[in-house]
Amino acid sequence: VNFVEVIAKKRDGRELNEDDVRAFVGGAARGTLGDEQLAALLMAICIRGASTRETTLLVEAMRDSGACWRLGDAYPEAVDKHSTGGVGDSVSLIFAPLVAACGVPVTMMAGAGLGHTQGTLDKLASIQGFRAAGNREEAIARIERCGVCFAAQSQEIAPADRKLYALRDVTATVPSSALIVASIMSKKLAVGTKRLILDVKWGTGAFCKKLAEAEELAEALVSVAASAGVMTSALVTDMNEPLGNCLGSAAEVRAAVEVLEGRGDRRLTELTMALAAEALVMAGRPADEAATALRAAIEGGAARHKLDELVLAHGGRPEFTHLPRPSRTVTVTAPRAGVVRAVDGEALGWVAVSLGAGRRRQGDEVDPAAGLVVHARTGDRLLAGAPLATLEIGARDVSLDPLLDRLTQAFELGDEAPQARPLVVARFKGNL
Amino acid sequence: VNFVEVIAKKRDGRELNEDDVRAFVGGAARGTLGDEQLAALLMAICIRGASTRETTLLVEAMRDSGACWRLGDAYPEAVDKHSTGGVGDSVSLIFAPLVAACGVPVTMMAGAGLGHTQGTLDKLASIQGFRAAGNREEAIARIERCGVCFAAQSQEIAPADRKLYALRDVTATVPSSALIVASIMSKKLAVGTKRLILDVKWGTGAFCKKLAEAEELAEALVSVAASAGVMTSALVTDMNEPLGNCLGSAAEVRAAVEVLEGRGDRRLTELTMALAAEALVMAGRPADEAATALRAAIEGGAARHKLDELVLAHGGRPEFTHLPRPSRTVTVTAPRAGVVRAVDGEALGWVAVSLGAGRRRQGDEVDPAAGLVVHARTGDRLLAGAPLATLEIGARDVSLDPLLDRLTQAFELGDEAPQARPLVVARFKGNL
Repeated sequence: VNFVEVIAKKRDGRELNEDDVRAFVGGAARGTLGDEQLAALLMAICIRGASTRETTLLVEAMRDSGACWRLGDAYPEAVDKHSTGGVGDSVSLIFAPLVAACGVPVTMMAGAGLGHTQGTLDKLASIQGFRAAGNREEAIARIERCGVCFAAQSQEIAPADRKLYALRDVTATVPSSALIVASIMSKKLAVGTKRLILDVKWGTGAFCKKLAEAEELAEALVSVAASAGVMTSALVTDMNEPLGNCLGSAAEVRAAVEVLEGRGDRRLTELTMALAAEALVMAGRPADEAATALRAAIEGGAARHKLDELVLAHGGRPEFTHLPRPSRTVTVTAPRAGVVRAVDGEALGWVAVSLGAGRRRQGDEVDPAAGLVVHARTGDRLLAGAPLATLEIGARDVSLDPLLDRLTQAFELGDEAPQARPLVVARFKGNL
Repeated sequence: VNFVEVIAKKRDGRELNEDDVRAFVGGAARGTLGDEQLAALLMAICIRGASTRETTLLVEAMRDSGACWRLGDAYPEAVDKHSTGGVGDSVSLIFAPLVAACGVPVTMMAGAGLGHTQGTLDKLASIQGFRAAGNREEAIARIERCGVCFAAQSQEIAPADRKLYALRDVTATVPSSALIVASIMSKKLAVGTKRLILDVKWGTGAFCKKLAEAEELAEALVSVAASAGVMTSALVTDMNEPLGNCLGSAAEVRAAVEVLEGRGDRRLTELTMALAAEALVMAGRPADEAATALRAAIEGGAARHKLDELVLAHGGRPEFTHLPRPSRTVTVTAPRAGVVRAVDGEALGWVAVSLGAGRRRQGDEVDPAAGLVVHARTGDRLLAGAPLATLEIGARDVSLDPLLDRLTQAFELGDEAPQARPLVVARFKGNL
């Protein structure tokens, strides 16, 4: 295969065949193609798009670029959950112990954060001693012990995805439906879990700024998953404001603990319950029983107890009072009285990144103590001077003035209450 | 400037501003942007296109990435000639002494060949001792001595173009009107000649496979040149078959000498005369006097004598009987009687490259003795067994069987004569 001709094909909007896709993905994984050639093809895919067939070929080639754990062979009923990335979204940390407490094993392939959203792996890293599974044996040992396994995308899982993800980040080729599907599904297929719950975000704080884009992505994910034999349910959910009220590694672990103790953020609780219910229904529970079981697991303390168990099983200290704390906090307040018409989650996300809570580029270090807490939510009526949000400043020296301005501006105050938006907008199910 | 945002702009089809373009070109020249970022933007430009304003900004930024020779200040009447690349096209080697023999100074920024077309610099290298000018002083010394300067694109001229050209070659982003215009014009502007004759090829052997593409490119070149104060005339010419009958470095020098001695290939002679006439008219000669002067320069031997002079002025030996010769030759013949309906110039070009007459990738070595001679031209009536073309094999070991097949197949034989095509199709003039 002459790779320049492969690039030219996609440049001109023609369809790639299996040889073309294997040359691309194999070259990325083995390092035999130059970054400039990979980047050119990524941009051509981003602009020209890809057919379902091309996307499926991409997914399979990326899965096969590394090890396949086949966890679904050992645990056919195990479920994985994935979100396309949101602000203040610590659902994974709640979903895993909650669903496992209801008797359904959970495998979670967790990633590091990049850009304005934080990653589950970073949040877990704020728990002293916590270590995600790095290979099949470690994954199975954790599931055997507590019914949950958090796995880190290791060097051996889908190495082509690691390479391409890093390139996409610096070449403005992240927002491509085909490439997003390929990135997500290749890792899921490599782990080999047979059931998957997807949370596809839409809105100002998500990759998909438009609802239609998110629905299209959800449909593409579900259909590629189905063709690969994975039972999938995808919810399209609102990310026009932060999901929970905490951003930052330690802050989001705290937020998760609060939900598991039945005193958490309302929206964060609601979405986790909806996604967990999908998992129980997929495991064969009737829908009404599933909701009851989930409520009981929280109210009876089983879910909270499962969190301690899974932290122990991953080598961590389940003492959440010892989480890193901010060195100081600064609260911004409402400059006028009024109704909160909108909260710009992406802006809040970038403020948190500026404090050290996330990464501008791969390799940046994350400060687990840095983050922020949101006090005013969309629809709230405020008096002038009411608290909007609190910066939790960690170890990093930051120039506060511009951050405080950006933080204040992220809250749009007005006189009329905004129209309420549903949290869960649509649901897609894959037929096997 | 956040360069990822610049890439995203063009990805989404929005217009780049001066800061964006300077960041791109400056980053390419200084090596501060990664190849993957440059490649992604090149592909986005290739697919999304660029406005005249963006193209002009690109040209100016690329010119300013290196030294500016300002030869037009010293020789306002000097003319440069450029072709967009054709097969069997040794016009530059004829044009320069011919126009100079008529009293108009000529500056030629010559490049190395890549792909199925050969470069003027490679052809000149087959003349023992020949050295193109590498800086302003050398260029002026050569013009002073013989009225002609062949210059090599040195490290100091438009380094951004060198970088981007190498990237375009491996990323399938060569065929972009904006990038072609920027590459050509940035070098011309850096040399600073104020008059320019362009030969824009269209057809199966050219970059522009369609006439409309070539006309669009010619118009873009002429308008960007005009806005930069360069008087330009562009001819759109036929490249649906090889221009001359020789391909390869030494072979094309031989072909040029034959034209200067009045016994050259008919089509090569005709096009050179048309382009040279444009140059003389631009220098103020009436059109009919120009044609007469050019014929006289060839018939009286002045043009041929000027070739010897210019070779000497460039340190070369004007003894063309000593040009490298092939180690052996193989001739393919017509498998049937018939009329030559088409000759695939690009196929012939790649056969020549396989023999070592050109480069598949930058850095490949060119064998000056390798090439081929075309005997059968479009419209010729042949008997079965009549010679089609002769391979001139140089120092490289080649597997002949596939080459002979490809060579034979490059000639389409039929029963009806094809429609004659004009050699010069259109003419564009820039208004200053």
